[in-house]
Amino acid sequence: MNDVIELLKSHRSIRKFTEQAVSDELINEIVSCGQAAASSSNIQATTVIRVRDTDKRARLAELAGGQRYVSSAAVFLVFCADLHRPQLACEMQGGDFSVGMTEHFIVATADVALAAQNCVVAAESLGLGICYIGGLRNNPQDVADLLGLPDQVYPVFGLCLGYPDQDPEVKPRLPLSTVLKENSYLNPSDISGIEVYDEHIREYYKSRTGGKKDSCWSEEMKALVGKESRPHMREFLKKRGFSMK
Amino acid sequence: MNDVIELLKSHRSIRKFTEQAVSDELINEIVSCGQAAASSSNIQATTVIRVRDTDKRARLAELAGGQRYVSSAAVFLVFCADLHRPQLACEMQGGDFSVGMTEHFIVATADVALAAQNCVVAAESLGLGICYIGGLRNNPQDVADLLGLPDQVYPVFGLCLGYPDQDPEVKPRLPLSTVLKENSYLNPSDISGIEVYDEHIREYYKSRTGGKKDSCWSEEMKALVGKESRPHMREFLKKRGFSMK
Repeated sequence: MNDVIELLKSHRSIRKFTEQAVSDELINEIVSCGQAAASSSNIQATTVIRVRDTDKRARLAELAGGQRYVSSAAVFLVFCADLHRPQLACEMQGGDFSVGMTEHFIVATADVALAAQNCVVAAESLGLGICYIGGLRNNPQDVADLLGLPDQVYPVFGLCLGYPDQDPEVKPRLPLSTVLKENSYLNPSDISGIEVYDEHIREYYKSRTGGKKDSCWSEEMKALVGKESRPHMREFLKKRGFSMK
Repeated sequence: MNDVIELLKSHRSIRKFTEQAVSDELINEIVSCGQAAASSSNIQATTVIRVRDTDKRARLAELAGGQRYVSSAAVFLVFCADLHRPQLACEMQGGDFSVGMTEHFIVATADVALAAQNCVVAAESLGLGICYIGGLRNNPQDVADLLGLPDQVYPVFGLCLGYPDQDPEVKPRLPLSTVLKENSYLNPSDISGIEVYDEHIREYYKSRTGGKKDSCWSEEMKALVGKESRPHMREFLKKRGFSMK
């Protein structure tokens, strides 16, 4: 269709990087692209912390569940949802910050994700590979302490960046007809869409692992949403000032 | 730097569109690009509802606070965070869905934003203009009823797409040094960064409105976070099954 669409459709997570450094100039350009994304009411709730310190990187790799590419990638960025800066601005104008509302939490989280995805597209256009690290939410309080995050700031995810030292296949997705609906959610073919995808991704996993991984999407979803995930997040966010009242 | 980065940095919201239609082929391509974005644990929590029905479009424009481009744009998409589909998959495997967890809510919301931003980049690469519509959260229950959303699905935002019939300037953002930090959040120059930006954006608003709009970022933030926003969201999400427990 065009080069940008080719780029977007060729995304895959990279977990193995060469030793090649990424220049500061590129990182500045990438984060500027993140800033260029739309921002709800121009709140600009994204703060990016680049972690260069090797001890902190090693600790973050551990906190994220032992994902060693968190320390081995050329660059590691922590994307934070930041309502502290709007608070500061509000107080500079003599206002009182009204904390912890669900809506502001949604706005800040979505803002960060829009900015991060722009960073990813920019990085991939420059030949870099990336991997999002949701595992920072395994131990969010320790991450917050390590990075000195003030209240009203939480780490949404991390991002590894570097020059790829692997070339994995693109992961197949659900059929378009299952995720794109018209006028109404109702779609009696959702189950058959999942069934088609289950077969498709089972073949993909088998081929990728030489037959070792024999699993499908619905089995993975059973493992994922059949139990509570990171149950500490509620309390953590409350302590951070996102009280969800 | 390169064409993709140029594209990302030239984003501005478009609120006035020509009558030119957007082909189904393009929309399918755009939403496929959304699907290609990274997805936490491959949960693929994004469902896109394309609203073609003119009555529904008019009603959505009203529900979003009278934003008429919601009905006049060539295409209007509603991006939903969808935990109903993983639930369906989980139940297909004999599992019990464990509803309403904060962590799953974050995952689903971030997933939608990553996918949407890929759609936006794809659309803009094809010469389309876009505008995110957070106003759907003004009346989320009515939106959910209108679109027949099941439990565990909520409308995160809408997206207008069409060929631009205006050419606004790119909105300036906070200084890079204010949003990109190293090793730690602490940055004693945050206030001066905001002050610099306040002057910059005040000039931008004045120039854009021929002197009519005389405001700055910190004043806008005072108005935005100095009071609770969309206080119904907490209760709405709870009713939707996102119980934030």
